[in-house]
Amino acid sequence: MSSAQPIVGIIMGSKSDLPVMQDAIDVLNHLKVPFEVSVVSAHRTPKRMFDYAEGAANRGIQVIIAGAGGAAHLPGMVASITHLPVIGVPVKSSNSIDGWDSILSILQMPNGIPVATVALNAAKNAGILAAQIVATAQPEVSNRLIAYKAELKEKVEETAVEVENMKF
Amino acid sequence: MSSAQPIVGIIMGSKSDLPVMQDAIDVLNHLKVPFEVSVVSAHRTPKRMFDYAEGAANRGIQVIIAGAGGAAHLPGMVASITHLPVIGVPVKSSNSIDGWDSILSILQMPNGIPVATVALNAAKNAGILAAQIVATAQPEVSNRLIAYKAELKEKVEETAVEVENMKF
Amino acid sequence: MSSAQPIVGIIMGSKSDLPVMQDAIDVLNHLKVPFEVSVVSAHRTPKRMFDYAEGAANRGIQVIIAGAGGAAHLPGMVASITHLPVIGVPVKSSNSIDGWDSILSILQMPNGIPVATVALNAAKNAGILAAQIVATAQPEVSNRLIAYKAELKEKVEETAVEVENMKF
Amino acid sequence: MSSAQPIVGIIMGSKSDLPVMQDAIDVLNHLKVPFEVSVVSAHRTPKRMFDYAEGAANRGIQVIIAGAGGAAHLPGMVASITHLPVIGVPVKSSNSIDGWDSILSILQMPNGIPVATVALNAAKNAGILAAQIVATAQPEVSNRLIAYKAELKEKVEETAVEVENMKF
Amino acid sequence: MSSAQPIVGIIMGSKSDLPVMQDAIDVLNHLKVPFEVSVVSAHRTPKRMFDYAEGAANRGIQVIIAGAGGAAHLPGMVASITHLPVIGVPVKSSNSIDGWDSILSILQMPNGIPVATVALNAAKNAGILAAQIVATAQPEVSNRLIAYKAELKEKVEETAVEVENMKF
Amino acid sequence: MSSAQPIVGIIMGSKSDLPVMQDAIDVLNHLKVPFEVSVVSAHRTPKRMFDYAEGAANRGIQVIIAGAGGAAHLPGMVASITHLPVIGVPVKSSNSIDGWDSILSILQMPNGIPVATVALNAAKNAGILAAQIVATAQPEVSNRLIAYKAELKEKVEETAVEVENMKF
Amino acid sequence: MSSAQPIVGIIMGSKSDLPVMQDAIDVLNHLKVPFEVSVVSAHRTPKRMFDYAEGAANRGIQVIIAGAGGAAHLPGMVASITHLPVIGVPVKSSNSIDGWDSILSILQMPNGIPVATVALNAAKNAGILAAQIVATAQPEVSNRLIAYKAELKEKVEETAVEVENMKF
Amino acid sequence: MSSAQPIVGIIMGSKSDLPVMQDAIDVLNHLKVPFEVSVVSAHRTPKRMFDYAEGAANRGIQVIIAGAGGAAHLPGMVASITHLPVIGVPVKSSNSIDGWDSILSILQMPNGIPVATVALNAAKNAGILAAQIVATAQPEVSNRLIAYKAELKEKVEETAVEVENMKF
Repeated sequence: MSSAQPIVGIIMGSKSDLPVMQDAIDVLNHLKVPFEVSVVSAHRTPKRMFDYAEGAANRGIQVIIAGAGGAAHLPGMVASITHLPVIGVPVKSSNSIDGWDSILSILQMPNGIPVATVALNAAKNAGILAAQIVATAQPEVSNRLIAYKAELKEKVEETAVEVENMKF
Repeated sequence: MSSAQPIVGIIMGSKSDLPVMQDAIDVLNHLKVPFEVSVVSAHRTPKRMFDYAEGAANRGIQVIIAGAGGAAHLPGMVASITHLPVIGVPVKSSNSIDGWDSILSILQMPNGIPVATVALNAAKNAGILAAQIVATAQPEVSNRLIAYKAELKEKVEETAVEVENMKF
Repeated sequence: MSSAQPIVGIIMGSKSDLPVMQDAIDVLNHLKVPFEVSVVSAHRTPKRMFDYAEGAANRGIQVIIAGAGGAAHLPGMVASITHLPVIGVPVKSSNSIDGWDSILSILQMPNGIPVATVALNAAKNAGILAAQIVATAQPEVSNRLIAYKAELKEKVEETAVEVENMKF
Repeated sequence: MSSAQPIVGIIMGSKSDLPVMQDAIDVLNHLKVPFEVSVVSAHRTPKRMFDYAEGAANRGIQVIIAGAGGAAHLPGMVASITHLPVIGVPVKSSNSIDGWDSILSILQMPNGIPVATVALNAAKNAGILAAQIVATAQPEVSNRLIAYKAELKEKVEETAVEVENMKF
Repeated sequence: MSSAQPIVGIIMGSKSDLPVMQDAIDVLNHLKVPFEVSVVSAHRTPKRMFDYAEGAANRGIQVIIAGAGGAAHLPGMVASITHLPVIGVPVKSSNSIDGWDSILSILQMPNGIPVATVALNAAKNAGILAAQIVATAQPEVSNRLIAYKAELKEKVEETAVEVENMKF
Repeated sequence: MSSAQPIVGIIMGSKSDLPVMQDAIDVLNHLKVPFEVSVVSAHRTPKRMFDYAEGAANRGIQVIIAGAGGAAHLPGMVASITHLPVIGVPVKSSNSIDGWDSILSILQMPNGIPVATVALNAAKNAGILAAQIVATAQPEVSNRLIAYKAELKEKVEETAVEVENMKF
Repeated sequence: MSSAQPIVGIIMGSKSDLPVMQDAIDVLNHLKVPFEVSVVSAHRTPKRMFDYAEGAANRGIQVIIAGAGGAAHLPGMVASITHLPVIGVPVKSSNSIDGWDSILSILQMPNGIPVATVALNAAKNAGILAAQIVATAQPEVSNRLIAYKAELKEKVEETAVEVENMKF
Repeated sequence: MSSAQPIVGIIMGSKSDLPVMQDAIDVLNHLKVPFEVSVVSAHRTPKRMFDYAEGAANRGIQVIIAGAGGAAHLPGMVASITHLPVIGVPVKSSNSIDGWDSILSILQMPNGIPVATVALNAAKNAGILAAQIVATAQPEVSNRLIAYKAELKEKVEETAVEVENMKF
């Protein structure tokens, strides 16, 4: 999908977050929402972060997904600079304290600057949430989300039949 | 703003959550985003919750804000039923364990069904986030958000001058 | 035991919970309490959950055991729909935050809608608790529980003799 | 209801737990389930606890509700002695560490000896759960529980109308 | 040392705790304090626990070391029955919540019934503490403890020299 | 009791800990165990702490009770210097993080240097534990502890009768 | 001291942090280290923060003290921009989760960008630490710190005498 | 760098902390700040710790880095004795409770005696912070820090280009 004009910007604090963030990429591809991907570190490249956040809306980005671990300042700082909705993915990095640090650093934003936080490592849900936001103005994305929900349901129903037929 | 066609639905698990949720109401009024408000309990009125979530999109609602405390299932269950973006506000109720129960019950949703979680009691940020979502397709809301950010900045700058002029 | 009229309903949010929930199955077989097993996801199959919870009592189910991980809404939502006693098993899933999310999502139910919560991953205890509930009206199950307690005691006494005879 | 043959035994580790445990008493009165109430301390009266737990079934008790705070051993120890279902109420006492100590001491029972744990201070839910257990063999209690659920629903619906009619 | 009249009683809730509790055995052997070892489960053998705790002082036991995991009631219950000092070792068992459950269940005893709690899995420290208690009336044990402290110091000083001579 | 040769040394990091530590004083008076009381700060008077810990045994002290809050180093540092048993009382001071800091700083001592930790603010239990240690060699203190346990039991039994006679 | 060339910059995220941060001001006055004070919000005035951090070294600032609450990004972001040492003060604000959010957001910085974190609300210690840093090159500040430590010791010794002379 | 007069003293509670503390050594070598390394245990060699802390300033040490795990008293005790700035590295040792014990034991120092705490296991940041302190009076170290920050930035920018060029 990366050839179309991207409307979702996916950024992460370090390339080591990519295995986690890949789930957002995959689900956005599945839902046919065009996106761009980059590495932007709040702490190692603060100016780059500034420029990214400031320029996103003008480049046509409608939603930003930012993943980071530890004292995760990237989602909140991006939200402080842009007026676009920012989705934060707490990443459970090594030396993280069970993920609590990432979660609280992203979630507990002060009044005035929200970050839409999803579960620990839940980049897939960040992708779906971005699509849901895009879908508020794009009925075809909305329809894909409805179909996606139906697929989830069907998979559970299949395993339900499987388990119900087991001998215990 | 409640006379216009509401596009944000604000629900809470109990009327006792209203003092917290009022902040969402106030900021949506400030940003001129029309909304509706109701009480919907996942645990005491599960069918009502079902009907609310199922009918919201057809009624013209684009974003749902759901606030709840303790084992807070309202945001996640509404998100399981609708394909609209759902914003969850963890409310620190009495007998809550410092708010951890509400936060984790709302935040840690499984893959496939995101809830956009904001900070503990941060209904104001839920309102702003709803406006940011709406603004992806409504430039006038976008402009109000940009103005709102400017107001926040000016207030800090004023207190900065005040503090810089204090004698210590 | 699954050929007799089941009186305990065992459900889980995902087939991946089966290895944990198997302990409930085994102990109910051991105590000769007939049961049924299925997969019911609060978040991926909300209507199925609704129907399951609503129909359980009429089908002859007397107790429901529900296991789920993360933001675990299944036990609480089932309890909100049925008047039967519901036993909740917090499952420590991957990306869970050490199990705290499952525990608090299941335990901290609001006034009016209890869930009988057991320890993290303690499906065996959920099975025993279901049998204890059934036993309040079935003396033969009661006798099996008394025998089961005696077995537990004897096993400890055997290892006690073993350890007391070790050379340290 | 205390004149009828009690079938629920309510015990607490200290008289200071009575204000919390009163909610169990009130809801059992409301649901017309006869009960007895006493003070039994696992740590200060271990023999009394032993005798209480050992004699309960023979006296006609079908379910035991035990409330305790801090390192709360009463519910688990009673469960280790009797084969009856035991419901544990974690009480948030002074010097408790936010209730975590009571919750974990009651919830995290080893395999073989379950305690049906309810939320922090949720003695009302303990009473309802006891009634649900009794109701598995007493249809009239079952009917009262169904009516009780309807009352809960109606109260929410009333406040919903109230809130929906507010001017925001 | 188990041939002499034991003055320290080491008990554990399950034989699976022996690898952890072995450290108490080893250090008591090193300090030449005679002891006995057994398995006593508060939850699976409550009467055995009662008898053990009640008879310990008369058998000549002066200090009891009790190790247990999860909702660890053994140390506190033994302390409720005997007037001897009881040392509690929180054991990090499987399905424990990072050891918090064992620690809080042992540490947070109510006023009147202390348990001398040591660090998670720190059976060695429990053994040393038992020896320190015995040493208050036995100067030869006191001397061994002083020698033991000197050994600890020397080992650190040796590694200090080693590290100081490294090339960095 | 402070005129007799003190055998228990009670120290605290700050005079502000005295209201909490008073409970140790009172129970030692009640049990007729002679003691001394002082203020010794590990962080503000490290040399004084060193001298206190080094000289205690020679002055006839048999057990040390040390209370401190926050990053509470006093009990552990005293234990590192003396070979006497040291009882640590975690004090919940202002700016403490719910007492977790004091508890973990005192409890989690490394192998070789135990601190007998009691519950948060539980100076009374520290006093009883000190008496239990003294009692291993003084039968008259042992008898007073047995009598004290009987008093605790009687008080519970009295309130039990009171509660059993209440009308609910 | 604010008339001299300031060498310590004290900033806080909001004027509401001033009562906590005042302790840093007072101790720097006491130690005669010149400072400046301002309000700089990472989230509400990101550019101001950028400019402040970028210009500090050139203005003669040698150490920055930054206090903030909740998802506290100010200390870490300032540290990402300047090469000066940055001291972070976690402030326990309202709606903070017991201060854990501020602590982890400030402490858990990634490799490469340290923040010298002090205890919750411990602005006094931030001031002392700033003075200690300044003192590495200014012997007169070093002497004042040595005198300050002596004062702390004397105050404890005075209360020690007071407590030792109490009648218990 | 160990041949020059050391100005940073690196100590650790046990040689087993060396793999973590090596990062401080490496970064100080990289930044050409001379240092010394040793093992000093607060609990096993309290006098050695005393002597180390007392003599450090006179030997020319300007900053002390102290790493320790569990109930980590080394950084705080060293800070109580010297007037030099002390940087504490919480080490996540085995049997640590997820690192919380080390963090809180080091961070939560009382008023008057700061420890500059860095993230769990973040010895690299301790080394950088030490260099930042040294740099306040040594412009050449300051320049190396500025270069180091530029290197960090460049590495991120390289991976950013890499990720931006990936096909998703």
